[in-house]
Amino acid sequence: MDLGDGTALLTDHYELTMLQAALREGTAGRRAVFEVFARSLPNGRRYGVVAGTGRLLDAIERFTFDAAQLEFLTAHGVVDQPTAEWLEKYRFTGNVWGYPEGECYFPDSPILVVEGTFAEAVLLETVALSILNHDCAIASAASRMVQAAAGRPLIEMGSRRTHERAAVSAARAAYIAGFATTSNLEAGRRYGVPTAGTAAHAFTLLHDSERHAFKAQLASLGESTTLLVDTYDVERAVRTAVELAGPALGAVRIDSGDLGVMARRVRELLDSLGATDTRIVVTGDLDEYGIASLGTAPVNGYGVGTSLVTGSGAPTASLVYKLVARADGPEPDAPMRPVAKRSAGKPTRGGRKAAVRRVDAHGTATCELITTGEPTPGPRDRLLHVPLIKDGEVVGREPLADARERHARSLRELPPTAVQLSRGQPAIPTEFVDGGVRPLE
Amino acid sequence: MDLGDGTALLTDHYELTMLQAALREGTAGRRAVFEVFARSLPNGRRYGVVAGTGRLLDAIERFTFDAAQLEFLTAHGVVDQPTAEWLEKYRFTGNVWGYPEGECYFPDSPILVVEGTFAEAVLLETVALSILNHDCAIASAASRMVQAAAGRPLIEMGSRRTHERAAVSAARAAYIAGFATTSNLEAGRRYGVPTAGTAAHAFTLLHDSERHAFKAQLASLGESTTLLVDTYDVERAVRTAVELAGPALGAVRIDSGDLGVMARRVRELLDSLGATDTRIVVTGDLDEYGIASLGTAPVNGYGVGTSLVTGSGAPTASLVYKLVARADGPEPDAPMRPVAKRSAGKPTRGGRKAAVRRVDAHGTATCELITTGEPTPGPRDRLLHVPLIKDGEVVGREPLADARERHARSLRELPPTAVQLSRGQPAIPTEFVDGGVRPLE
Repeated sequence: MDLGDGTALLTDHYELTMLQAALREGTAGRRAVFEVFARSLPNGRRYGVVAGTGRLLDAIERFTFDAAQLEFLTAHGVVDQPTAEWLEKYRFTGNVWGYPEGECYFPDSPILVVEGTFAEAVLLETVALSILNHDCAIASAASRMVQAAAGRPLIEMGSRRTHERAAVSAARAAYIAGFATTSNLEAGRRYGVPTAGTAAHAFTLLHDSERHAFKAQLASLGESTTLLVDTYDVERAVRTAVELAGPALGAVRIDSGDLGVMARRVRELLDSLGATDTRIVVTGDLDEYGIASLGTAPVNGYGVGTSLVTGSGAPTASLVYKLVARADGPEPDAPMRPVAKRSAGKPTRGGRKAAVRRVDAHGTATCELITTGEPTPGPRDRLLHVPLIKDGEVVGREPLADARERHARSLRELPPTAVQLSRGQPAIPTEFVDGGVRPLE
Repeated sequence: MDLGDGTALLTDHYELTMLQAALREGTAGRRAVFEVFARSLPNGRRYGVVAGTGRLLDAIERFTFDAAQLEFLTAHGVVDQPTAEWLEKYRFTGNVWGYPEGECYFPDSPILVVEGTFAEAVLLETVALSILNHDCAIASAASRMVQAAAGRPLIEMGSRRTHERAAVSAARAAYIAGFATTSNLEAGRRYGVPTAGTAAHAFTLLHDSERHAFKAQLASLGESTTLLVDTYDVERAVRTAVELAGPALGAVRIDSGDLGVMARRVRELLDSLGATDTRIVVTGDLDEYGIASLGTAPVNGYGVGTSLVTGSGAPTASLVYKLVARADGPEPDAPMRPVAKRSAGKPTRGGRKAAVRRVDAHGTATCELITTGEPTPGPRDRLLHVPLIKDGEVVGREPLADARERHARSLRELPPTAVQLSRGQPAIPTEFVDGGVRPLE
């Protein structure tokens, strides 16, 4: 069973039936602009975090139809022969702009703008939304956890709780948002995310005693390792650990019970045994609220699994991909017309948009200005779109570390309410201006 | 950027550090039994649905370490050279049994049993849990939606709301649970799930009028197609649709507004226009409760997206992979010893288990019997484990249709309370018996 690198069939059936009908009708070649945005942030969150853009650029480069895929599409009647011939030559030749990875976003922020013919741009809808909806959901949850941890390092360890490939992307998104390490080895190999991990309960159970298990682990990994101390009796395990490793023992991990109470007891015990530098790592069903509640506990690091990879209650970012403008005719220079649906409860706003993060004299963001006109930013304002693909060529690739640094910067710029965990309004309001943004000063 | 078929790095770092320590200690070769089970069902659900087993068999076959992966592991200090040499030769040679796909499961049901050396079996933990936690979560949610739809067909269309690779697996899991079709083309190509789809709002907006768009779609897809009627004004769109397609129009789709109210209005309008056979498909943020609430509405099919791919509130099945028995020494015939951790709130039950679905004289399941002894099922009882891998060879592969049929059968066998959507107890209790199951009769 071949997994394959191709991304062209990670696509909804109807993208291809629309393509076929538009090709036949002669409308497929009309210039079009699609935008990706979220109508709201989930669960009263204060901000969202852009992630996945780098993966999307890879996916668009690999979005081509091979013979086996075309054979599937024609044999199953998804497309007719003329459409298959068009698909055989398909390669995205348009332009893409977007918020760079790590940037914060808000309701209606146009985090991606895709410009091309209708035909070439509509085909990217599904894979673009899949990647961005997943990665933004994870990064947005991860960022809140990082804030809740207030400088203590976070280990991402949720691989086992999500789809095996989503796990790799989740580790990447969490790293952008500020997680220190991941348990996922493929994320280490593919994206350079630092990996970490030592032992599970099974390792203790494999051996004839906890003492045997600890000795084996110390012999292999050295005294700086982290010993898991809650397989049988925590106090006994901590005593055994320090007895075997001495005060240079790197860390102990607690995975069950009341983590705050246990951390305090273990800290006292470690100190009484002279292991004052031995760190305490806690794991086990932690989310941003659980992390925050341990703020005064003597904890040196957190491992987060399920809640990270499931977006802590918001497993998808609810981003949509909407046609906002298209040409009246097939000529490359035909005038563009804003378009919008009027569906009850889900209307869209027509016209291609620019976005500006308004920043006041103190360096604090004050609003997200979105305009269908020409943006004219003030001296401290930031234009949020960067070029990602130009005439089909990827121009927006960057090291993951840049995205990680950008996120820290973008978050620092927001008003202090941004990092409140409670439900509420977005940290800054989104304002629409038709016909251009006037400078603040 | 190469995606790669290999699955060996879809693994938590600590599986390899445990391996290394056990290799050095001489305990890596001890026979071991790991079991996969869920401590509880999420959100008061009445049953879970096993899915992902077929994918897991594929993943285990591809679980080998290539030179690039080994280079990554040694260069980054994840493993030492002797461990890398062991990994280079790694191939799972043990045995796996499990509940077949589509089978219902309950708290503590041992849905997978992995037997091998500790070393070879511990390495599979992460990928086994990733696959089963994701696919079981989706199938379990999907099955409730199928029950709520009471015979009306369901279209899976959630690809854009989840990770691009998880989307393919979600479509497969939903099909096992009884969904009729998916929008995901890769699920069609890879797994043979029937695909479906016609057009989005963007197609209407691309054209100079809704009438132009409908004409173009009908010309391409024929009058049996489904026209999307809520881009501007539903009533006007339905009139246009029937005017253009005639009474043979296949279906109309409503994606917004109060779907029950809209469906009734559209049904009346279609009937008044003579389009009595034209079906009505509704989409838009439906979950099992939304589907059930439309039971009396004149709806002919449902499209389900977000709630399906996010497990309708339970995006992971919370399955764990626990060591339950291991040999005292490295000899192949060394006696096995049950093992269990005693962690607060998360204890495990030692010993390798068999599982029996107890079925009464009326053919109704009465309980899930789990035993560490030899099971002796009564005449209607079903032994739930089937062989999946024997001495490293996959023996449990089957067509997806078999899993789909099995699920329908397994669900029919449960008491009627199983299909209640309300929160409550599992449909049948789980009972533990030490030393064998006594027959009922």
